[in-house]
Amino acid sequence: MWNYDIALEWKDGKAGELGAAGKPAVTVATPPEFGGPPGTWTPEDLLAASVAGCVMTTALFWTDRLKVNLRRYRSSATARMEKTREGLAITAVEIRVAASVAAPSTAADMAKVMNLAEQNCPISKSLKCPVTVALECEVE
Amino acid sequence: MWNYDIALEWKDGKAGELGAAGKPAVTVATPPEFGGPPGTWTPEDLLAASVAGCVMTTALFWTDRLKVNLRRYRSSATARMEKTREGLAITAVEIRVAASVAAPSTAADMAKVMNLAEQNCPISKSLKCPVTVALECEVE
Repeated sequence: MWNYDIALEWKDGKAGELGAAGKPAVTVATPPEFGGPPGTWTPEDLLAASVAGCVMTTALFWTDRLKVNLRRYRSSATARMEKTREGLAITAVEIRVAASVAAPSTAADMAKVMNLAEQNCPISKSLKCPVTVALECEVE
Repeated sequence: MWNYDIALEWKDGKAGELGAAGKPAVTVATPPEFGGPPGTWTPEDLLAASVAGCVMTTALFWTDRLKVNLRRYRSSATARMEKTREGLAITAVEIRVAASVAAPSTAADMAKVMNLAEQNCPISKSLKCPVTVALECEVE
């Protein structure tokens, strides 16, 4: 069992400061469309960041394990929020990955890595909504 | 429908850089207990931060709506990860809030706010695991 602890203190308006032992502070606020300030991480952004981070770090575990020569990994992620019967909820998280591998690794090797990452990411598994991972892979 | 978009690029080792339009970059990495660097936000931390941020911003919505004189709001959050039948997963998120309100608002008013925040937080509603919110409230 592993525990991950953070702290959050309200500063003013719709914003607060996140902290965790030895880690840089991050400001979090209500999204602008619900009355928060612009240019600030929102809880919904942080959820997308958590899932994208988990998919990446799980993929890095599998590139090591399967000896895939990863050269580049860039991803973007979208968390979708919608009105549902139970009120506002996240209804989908989409991850798009652009990766490069060096020969003798192949695009099929990286596809295998991403399938394993998609299946084994602890954060994705903890969400009710679907998490999709799309891969574009170049071979150098 | 609202979309929340972020980007994540692998830098080196087990770490990558998170970004979102106009927002400060945040480094994310595998937790130290799984081979990542110390002092860096992990996906599990970011999940705890997302839930804590959502509970706070939802509470701020309700303090406005119910005209509760909130003076201070500090919270800590723990995301618990465990081995389950489906592999590693987040099995609980616990939020602890220490708040102060000014008279004529009462601790009961703030308890009502936190119940509403607990029930209506879009992030909590999107998780399979239980999210608990405990409140300690002082009246100034």
